[in-house]
Amino acid sequence: MALGMRIDCLQYCNWSETIFQQLRQGGVDAIHVTIAYHETFHDTVRNITAWNRLFERFPDMIFQGFTGDDVRKARETNRTAVFFGFQNPSPIEDDVFLVEILHRLGVRFMQLSYNNQSLLATGCYEANDPGITRMGKQVIAEMNRVGMVVDMSHSAERSTLEAIDLSERPIAITHANPNFWAPALRNKSDEVLKALAGRGGMIGFSIYPHHLLNKSDCTLESFCQMVADTADMIGVEHIGMGSDLCQDHADSEVEWMRNGRWTKAIDYGEGSASAAGFPDMPSWFRDNRDWDNVENGLLSVGFSNDDVASIMGNNWLRFFDENFSPTTS
Amino acid sequence: MALGMRIDCLQYCNWSETIFQQLRQGGVDAIHVTIAYHETFHDTVRNITAWNRLFERFPDMIFQGFTGDDVRKARETNRTAVFFGFQNPSPIEDDVFLVEILHRLGVRFMQLSYNNQSLLATGCYEANDPGITRMGKQVIAEMNRVGMVVDMSHSAERSTLEAIDLSERPIAITHANPNFWAPALRNKSDEVLKALAGRGGMIGFSIYPHHLLNKSDCTLESFCQMVADTADMIGVEHIGMGSDLCQDHADSEVEWMRNGRWTKAIDYGEGSASAAGFPDMPSWFRDNRDWDNVENGLLSVGFSNDDVASIMGNNWLRFFDENFSPTTS
Repeated sequence: MALGMRIDCLQYCNWSETIFQQLRQGGVDAIHVTIAYHETFHDTVRNITAWNRLFERFPDMIFQGFTGDDVRKARETNRTAVFFGFQNPSPIEDDVFLVEILHRLGVRFMQLSYNNQSLLATGCYEANDPGITRMGKQVIAEMNRVGMVVDMSHSAERSTLEAIDLSERPIAITHANPNFWAPALRNKSDEVLKALAGRGGMIGFSIYPHHLLNKSDCTLESFCQMVADTADMIGVEHIGMGSDLCQDHADSEVEWMRNGRWTKAIDYGEGSASAAGFPDMPSWFRDNRDWDNVENGLLSVGFSNDDVASIMGNNWLRFFDENFSPTTS
Repeated sequence: MALGMRIDCLQYCNWSETIFQQLRQGGVDAIHVTIAYHETFHDTVRNITAWNRLFERFPDMIFQGFTGDDVRKARETNRTAVFFGFQNPSPIEDDVFLVEILHRLGVRFMQLSYNNQSLLATGCYEANDPGITRMGKQVIAEMNRVGMVVDMSHSAERSTLEAIDLSERPIAITHANPNFWAPALRNKSDEVLKALAGRGGMIGFSIYPHHLLNKSDCTLESFCQMVADTADMIGVEHIGMGSDLCQDHADSEVEWMRNGRWTKAIDYGEGSASAAGFPDMPSWFRDNRDWDNVENGLLSVGFSNDDVASIMGNNWLRFFDENFSPTTS
């Protein structure tokens, strides 16, 4: 049984009735779902209409979340609130005014860059990171105004530090791990994690194998000890879950995530030519039915019940309450 | 002083600080504004972002309205609530799922056709009216579901009667007059008006000269007697205002309204080659500062204070309360 709210702050699945049933079986009150990697504005709207069809078809299991109160409503009605986010700013194209439009449509997180340079910031796979761009500064201010959270999960170091500093509201790294535990371009330095927490931000821990120590063979104990070590470093109130669960997709989907329309040559991202597809999940987290394992693992490394409740969802709920509404009404 | 709420259920002006000041001087609590004639979805979103810039720039005079309660909020805070609508279904393109997206963005009225045949219905200038199309039936059902009002102001007779019948929620003719008073293709037959009211619908009376008896020379007395005669025919609870005020536009704007991108030859619509531009407004209604004239005119033809309050805005407020929300939550 969940000790508090259960919120997973990033999933990107091939959504189906089966997965929604698993979310209910796992007691997940809210998920942040990716609805755009490389999509234009109109492509993104079509992805929202696809979600609207799911909301209409499965109203007993899911509904769209807009505010923290929707997480409470989900808990009260035994459903999962679904919050939209982008892993790339491509949906706003070159138009800062689309931030408000997309916030109105329920988008609550936007990464300023996804692996590559964007109009706003640099991604973690670029050789050079010149920091937040002129348009990036404008977009951060607009996101702050309307209540859309800056997410730097796939961004490069300097851009991330500058975003933390420039943003007047706390930002998030919705799905990544500390690189003191698992060195990877996608994982984050101590400096980033401390700066993030210093400004009230949150990190969601990823269970995507490429972000784990020993990848698919990572043990639950090692993962939970990493959570404990991160809590010691930046405070338990700044950490949560962001599993990066990519369930039931064909391997072709990871090609879209990595290559979009920006390259003709195949880019393998965190994979390789010999392991191009989705990696196997660790045995202790196959899908949303396994959140009890994580909760028990956190208790085993010495967290109190209250701390586990905070990490499993209560921290994200506080963050949602504080960061999804406009600064002015 | 206004006897009740003041709502004008259609305006299409070249919006400016001056016009917003005039709305306040005229005590107008809410307006329904046209944000699309022939625009595509993306064009329409850009028009919404243009309004968002106005809302951010003039927060002391205007804000976006979504529900009837926003009209009450406008009255309490001495502002005007602005509700969005389309005169044509072009913004949904061929995609019924865009109805829900645009409702989320605040669109509350959509005409099923504008003068010409559309994908949904026939316009009042077509020679033949085959009625509501296959897609039209789907879109009406979706508009009913989400809470977007079917508006048949510019539609042809058969399509209008069928829309009234097919729609499970009341529909509106936001801006037109009865053709028993002023024969014009845009004005409505007794049969349409009776059917509209019989299903709980509303008509907003137009002050656009092409819809008036004697056009720009129409007298206030004649206009108000027409209102009284219509009330006698269909009931005072089904009538309101829909001035069709098109203030401060260059004549080129009426070309866009009439011609869009659908014709290379110039179509003069209600005008003519010798009078192609916007007609002069009648002397008793230059702009929003003159609503007191209309209110006094209605009192002069024998309406009670309560009836005048109903016609000037309370009827529309009841209609907004009942028709802007989804049928299911």
